[in-house]
Amino acid sequence: MMIEEKPALARPAPFKFEPHHFAPAAYNLESSIIRDILKFSNQPGVISFAGGLPGPDLFPVEEIREAADRVLTHYGTKALQYGLSMGYSPLREFIAERVAMRGGVQLSADNILVTSGSQQALDVVGRAFLEPGNYVLCCRPTYLGALQAFSFYGARYAPIEMDNDGMMVEKVDPVIRELHPRLMYVVPNFQNPSGITMSEKRRQLLVQKSQQYGIPIIDDNPYGELRYSGTDVPSIKSIGGQAVIQLGTFSKIISPGLRIGWIAASRQTMGVFERVKQCTDLHTNEFAQYVIYEFVQNGALDRHIERLKVAYHERRDAMLRAMSEFFPDTVTWTKPDGGLFLWVRLPEHADATQLFNSAIEEKVAYVPGKPFHPDGSGGNTLRLNFSNASLENIHEGIKRLGRVFSTLA
Amino acid sequence: MMIEEKPALARPAPFKFEPHHFAPAAYNLESSIIRDILKFSNQPGVISFAGGLPGPDLFPVEEIREAADRVLTHYGTKALQYGLSMGYSPLREFIAERVAMRGGVQLSADNILVTSGSQQALDVVGRAFLEPGNYVLCCRPTYLGALQAFSFYGARYAPIEMDNDGMMVEKVDPVIRELHPRLMYVVPNFQNPSGITMSEKRRQLLVQKSQQYGIPIIDDNPYGELRYSGTDVPSIKSIGGQAVIQLGTFSKIISPGLRIGWIAASRQTMGVFERVKQCTDLHTNEFAQYVIYEFVQNGALDRHIERLKVAYHERRDAMLRAMSEFFPDTVTWTKPDGGLFLWVRLPEHADATQLFNSAIEEKVAYVPGKPFHPDGSGGNTLRLNFSNASLENIHEGIKRLGRVFSTLA
Repeated sequence: MMIEEKPALARPAPFKFEPHHFAPAAYNLESSIIRDILKFSNQPGVISFAGGLPGPDLFPVEEIREAADRVLTHYGTKALQYGLSMGYSPLREFIAERVAMRGGVQLSADNILVTSGSQQALDVVGRAFLEPGNYVLCCRPTYLGALQAFSFYGARYAPIEMDNDGMMVEKVDPVIRELHPRLMYVVPNFQNPSGITMSEKRRQLLVQKSQQYGIPIIDDNPYGELRYSGTDVPSIKSIGGQAVIQLGTFSKIISPGLRIGWIAASRQTMGVFERVKQCTDLHTNEFAQYVIYEFVQNGALDRHIERLKVAYHERRDAMLRAMSEFFPDTVTWTKPDGGLFLWVRLPEHADATQLFNSAIEEKVAYVPGKPFHPDGSGGNTLRLNFSNASLENIHEGIKRLGRVFSTLA
Repeated sequence: MMIEEKPALARPAPFKFEPHHFAPAAYNLESSIIRDILKFSNQPGVISFAGGLPGPDLFPVEEIREAADRVLTHYGTKALQYGLSMGYSPLREFIAERVAMRGGVQLSADNILVTSGSQQALDVVGRAFLEPGNYVLCCRPTYLGALQAFSFYGARYAPIEMDNDGMMVEKVDPVIRELHPRLMYVVPNFQNPSGITMSEKRRQLLVQKSQQYGIPIIDDNPYGELRYSGTDVPSIKSIGGQAVIQLGTFSKIISPGLRIGWIAASRQTMGVFERVKQCTDLHTNEFAQYVIYEFVQNGALDRHIERLKVAYHERRDAMLRAMSEFFPDTVTWTKPDGGLFLWVRLPEHADATQLFNSAIEEKVAYVPGKPFHPDGSGGNTLRLNFSNASLENIHEGIKRLGRVFSTLA
């Protein structure tokens, strides 16, 4: 008996990825408008106030070189091996002590998870807390990177108005009662994008609301150590204790390329964060953790931050001076006591996104404010970075911007 | 008229995190049993075959030290600054050329996304493709880290039996028709945990099924360059082209502590991967990318891999010899042509998880096989790592394990 072979399958068409292959939450992610704008900003001759970059002229390159050399001379096989999901223990102890000392709170290494920059800290927080449709209470405007991290998990936003004392917390009750937010998210010190610092009274009220409604607070604090004027305000973590999850990073005070940030939180939450971190990327770059730990020894971090503060203070003042000189009277701006950013408000009818094209013609760049507004408002606002430009470029760039804004009439 | 003030709110109880505060997908994550086992394995005097660690005695510490020194001397301000979400372009070009050369495929830097180790590559893939309830077709056993990454996104699994030629692809049709998997996941070379390499015929059949049903293949390839015997099999990517997303890493061939892996895929998918990467952690450690790029120049990577292969070849052979000498006849094992792992099968009734306690009493550690089986089978199997032990320890440790297994009767 002959057994008839089945005919071979017709050769299928070459594989092509279609939208249905992807998870909608990923496929529908929008590219950051900031990233697109940064491409324009890098054109030759453009003075850019767009990025959130620290000044590379201030990187402690030589000290990092020496630290890396010592790490590989003395701990090479350990720094190059797999590490723990929670992070390199001596670095966690250093972070705990520093956060505790500056924040007036009690912390140990067990309260610290090391992350790949504070963007990953935001992502870990999003993963740990958010389900699709959950609301996040935040400021209007708020940090764009947090919106990007949380939105992947299906977050919606309950944006609260700000004044010069930060989020207007006295307005949150009806919003909380209606939307039951899962998290409260704030950048209390020298906020990105506005540069505004939340007052102590508002911090206390926020903690009170957090306790009253049982909603954790995410206290995102990348700039807290970069104060150039005024006096420190007690940290939300020191007021709220267990309820507060504080995020920090070495990106703005040492180097963003090393990608070392952290989450400081109660032990109750750390088990969840650790398991999330483990399935995400096992652990943070071990070599970079060793290098940072080696660099910060013997007060080197404090000395470096003092250098940063002197330089950024000058740059902030130069920008404020130039704005007074060159911006028309119809334009207003914040006067931040620290951080990297100033916030500009154009006349109501102006569109900072459209105006960006005129700015590029004048060879100067900024970031339009609209993407920082989860409700799509803020079309007449924009963000200026003052940390990543020389004093000369600040003067010249603001002069160019002044010409652009003068056309607004 | 007196306006009566509302009474102050009673001071609320201190905040306490409860399960309802967390997203269930995160709260319910299980800690990796491997992580728990590694804690036991690190006790003094224990010979551990448990981890998946490369041998630290073989790390190119001095060359990395020189590379780091050159990077910070010549490119300090760039290596310490923010970078691109896709990764450092020269490194992406190097990876593209190397993957193309070894895999017989056409690739450019545009096809490469640099990730924080290949665990993050798995996470990015999970984010990009998986929705809750989606099935992933995989081997039984399969890599535990992939299960952890995918499970966060709600994946379920369609595990397919393996023989010495890898996944028995001829059995997939009814499974695919019933469960409509969103992805096919394989570790084709020296699989973790089994050490098995998929035959060319099976690879071709897998690609045919992928084309036929329109399901992308994840070709996870951390060990492909570590072959000690036999000859290379054409890569799934070279057979399947666009349909295949290949994951790679420098963890096993340079250093896991530097956490540099990658995704090699068609441009159609790269836009999604890039946006996912951006909201996850902005970009991979820039300094580590520069250091690796500096290290691999002038054939240094090939020379280093040759050294690894000589050493791991000896260790594999030492373990196989010792197993023949000390293991009872009722125990069988694989003879991998490369990679870091051997796979052991105990008699049917044996429980490798329970037996771990006896092993620890004998001061020797392994990983029980059950967690690598998404269907909960494999209780009588276990994984041994041979890359992270000296020849003496391999002999002595296998001797100890032989004593443990002899009690099985």
